[in-house]
Amino acid sequence: MFRAASSTAAAAARDPSFARWNEDDKRFFEELLSPGAVLTALDDTAPFTTDWLNKYKAQSAHQMVLRPKTTAQVSAILRHCHARRLPVVPQGGNTGLVGGSVPVHDEIVLSLGAMNQVVSFDEVSGILVAEAGCVLEALDNHVARHGYMMPLDLGAKGTCQLGGNVASNAGGLRLLRYGSLHGTVLGVEAVLADGTVVDCLSTMRKDNTGYDLKQLFIGSEGTLGVVTKVSILTPPRAASVNVALLGCEDFAAVQRAFVAAKRDLGEVLSAVEFMDREALDMVLRQQPQSRDPLEAPCPYYVLLETAGSNAAHDMDKLEAYLERAMDDGLVVDGTVAQDAQQARKLFLLREDITLALSARGFVYKYDISLPIAHYYEIVEQTRARLAPLGADVVAFGHLGDCNLHLNVSTPAYDARVFQALEPFVFEWTANVRGSISAEHGIGLHKPAFLHLSKSASAIELMRRMKQLLDPRGILNPYKVLPAP
Amino acid sequence: MFRAASSTAAAAARDPSFARWNEDDKRFFEELLSPGAVLTALDDTAPFTTDWLNKYKAQSAHQMVLRPKTTAQVSAILRHCHARRLPVVPQGGNTGLVGGSVPVHDEIVLSLGAMNQVVSFDEVSGILVAEAGCVLEALDNHVARHGYMMPLDLGAKGTCQLGGNVASNAGGLRLLRYGSLHGTVLGVEAVLADGTVVDCLSTMRKDNTGYDLKQLFIGSEGTLGVVTKVSILTPPRAASVNVALLGCEDFAAVQRAFVAAKRDLGEVLSAVEFMDREALDMVLRQQPQSRDPLEAPCPYYVLLETAGSNAAHDMDKLEAYLERAMDDGLVVDGTVAQDAQQARKLFLLREDITLALSARGFVYKYDISLPIAHYYEIVEQTRARLAPLGADVVAFGHLGDCNLHLNVSTPAYDARVFQALEPFVFEWTANVRGSISAEHGIGLHKPAFLHLSKSASAIELMRRMKQLLDPRGILNPYKVLPAP
Repeated sequence: MFRAASSTAAAAARDPSFARWNEDDKRFFEELLSPGAVLTALDDTAPFTTDWLNKYKAQSAHQMVLRPKTTAQVSAILRHCHARRLPVVPQGGNTGLVGGSVPVHDEIVLSLGAMNQVVSFDEVSGILVAEAGCVLEALDNHVARHGYMMPLDLGAKGTCQLGGNVASNAGGLRLLRYGSLHGTVLGVEAVLADGTVVDCLSTMRKDNTGYDLKQLFIGSEGTLGVVTKVSILTPPRAASVNVALLGCEDFAAVQRAFVAAKRDLGEVLSAVEFMDREALDMVLRQQPQSRDPLEAPCPYYVLLETAGSNAAHDMDKLEAYLERAMDDGLVVDGTVAQDAQQARKLFLLREDITLALSARGFVYKYDISLPIAHYYEIVEQTRARLAPLGADVVAFGHLGDCNLHLNVSTPAYDARVFQALEPFVFEWTANVRGSISAEHGIGLHKPAFLHLSKSASAIELMRRMKQLLDPRGILNPYKVLPAP
Repeated sequence: MFRAASSTAAAAARDPSFARWNEDDKRFFEELLSPGAVLTALDDTAPFTTDWLNKYKAQSAHQMVLRPKTTAQVSAILRHCHARRLPVVPQGGNTGLVGGSVPVHDEIVLSLGAMNQVVSFDEVSGILVAEAGCVLEALDNHVARHGYMMPLDLGAKGTCQLGGNVASNAGGLRLLRYGSLHGTVLGVEAVLADGTVVDCLSTMRKDNTGYDLKQLFIGSEGTLGVVTKVSILTPPRAASVNVALLGCEDFAAVQRAFVAAKRDLGEVLSAVEFMDREALDMVLRQQPQSRDPLEAPCPYYVLLETAGSNAAHDMDKLEAYLERAMDDGLVVDGTVAQDAQQARKLFLLREDITLALSARGFVYKYDISLPIAHYYEIVEQTRARLAPLGADVVAFGHLGDCNLHLNVSTPAYDARVFQALEPFVFEWTANVRGSISAEHGIGLHKPAFLHLSKSASAIELMRRMKQLLDPRGILNPYKVLPAP
């Protein structure tokens, strides 16, 4: 049973028209790939067939993982699977939160992790070309040596891979400043379901030559093609990074502090993160060595980051902003990190919420976008709704992008809590015209709710796109689109 | 004859399978639309059936222009045209440079100019929703009242329309700082060829709910659907804008000055424009009231703009940069505008190149992206190639995006010059892996050269997309895709 996905359980019945891989298929792949690149022993496949939260797990003991090293191998694998009608799950770092990267039944896992080479980096333009399996943090370190940084940063950076980032249109902490991957990705090489390699690996920032096909693959969660290489624009690495933590008395003050930060910090503002007291408490409870970051506890916290080219100017702006925010009563208390270590510490309070939550027990995770006026309202309503069930409701997220991570924690899975949350959270979000999936995607968790954020004509067009690009439906089946 | 498009003349023969509009069609449209919204007299249709450079002109005297006011009207028009197999050209401000927005034969012009209302603007998030026919400059003025600015700025801003900007993925001066429309456009409402309205008008910055369909319409030049509404993220308007003009002795110094500007000006850098002496001379000849901006003439000029939230910090950074650039010998002379009027004057030298060129005679325009190392090489080679023919070769462009506008001027059209330029310019560009169309698009001018910038598998996929979305081929025929 998919514990957190009962609503999609019906959609997740095995499609009987798919073939199952057999010994002939295995031999074909073994001849095609390097030694050790075909895994079928359950001990070997286990890390690839469940997600890191142990929430989604393949429902079959008939598992195979393929680890190609080249685009040609990916193409040959898919050509074979297409002909045989063998279903395939493309997988990067397997750090997703909606079950998008693990098999539902006996789909073959196509792991891109062995394609992990940097193809090129241009020091003048800052354009990086890399294989899909490169780990985000490794790429960030690579371009750092030339004075650049990756335009995205996630909690999962040490494990997640560039191809998976692109396939899931990962958001994260730097989106506020550098925009989404739809803008920063300049080119994609992808393999279609039938093995056709589509080379749109432009390294030009401007390239209006026909339809921008790479966009199809960004955010399609591996259902339209397998991303094998990516070209991406990296911004100059900031010479100076400052972090401030502010405490606010009410959510109206949080909003005003945000608008004031856009005005006063302008071009150096690089992150505007939010957490409520409940989220901070979750981290402090799990990390006995951490202590309350401000003198007195506050109900709401805003974490601001600036990144700029001149340390004196940046600190000047940040201090002027803080002074004004205190004078105007937006902020009751605040602290500015005095060095990189303090800055890291403050940021870890925010980044460690996810780990603290999963260490504590079961987590019901919701990743939504909301008009700012409704951003915290849903948290209060959810808390009131769950009070009788003894669940902890914590809220944090990328306030600057109106992106809220609403998380509910119980010591163990509780069906009553789940039923109180779904479809309540999705319908509430749809009612205020928010998005039921801000950055995590749809995966296996939310196809049944897609209609709450997308019109019928849009979903119909998505189906036609899927039919066009993957007519036999072998790529990441049961995911993203609702069952017909 | 298409003077500048002889290579596409073959592709531009009328498709005999299309119907021609008749009196019944006209009556249908007159009943559907407001009085005066159906134009057929040649005096009335003339402004819509040729481009502003008078380079592309409809080849038939059988012309009709429709001016709908609502999405429902656009939908009804297309449903009718689809059923009747009447070809249609969607048209915004008609400021394009590749013949994309005028009829080739007797296609019906679907002008969006009467759909020019702002739908909403959110002062906290800076998100604007507007109809396709809104003029870019009017929108910039609208959001300016709330402290924001449009993320794009073009020479044509007083005439071009938002829907056309999106359909052509317009680039322009601010792309360096704010990125392309693929990142800043948050939502699109579009009408498909058969009249289906696709509502992807999200106003959320993060919305990973299924395939990002709006991307299909961005840059597809009206061949996949008609954009009717757009939701776009506008950045805060800078409190301080500074402009500097630098003169360089050689192109190596230009490159080094650019890299140094990225390093020293970092987050406040908002435009890095380039022009050569020949381009500046073209403007000075046409504007007798203008004078040489620097003491001594230089072969290469770089125009830098900074935009920031703190005037003192910005000027501090700019002056430190200039001093360093002079000391390091990157720049032989330079000037910093001391007020907004001076800044405007400096910028106009760059913006007026296009007007000066067209005032002088016939212009062969090429808009290409190149690896920076090759950016000026093509100018020198083109100049050498055309020397015997007495054509003037001028070069300017968005250096910060590696986007070059290579323009050739003759008093009147000269077939020998044209033949010396095409396919030479496109093939040279393709050889260094540049893009044959950086921001102007393909339109009617370049379908025959698309294969130089896109792989065969990519063009095949584009064809399949076109077939899927517009199976009868009525939307902007003869454009973008090469003849089969």
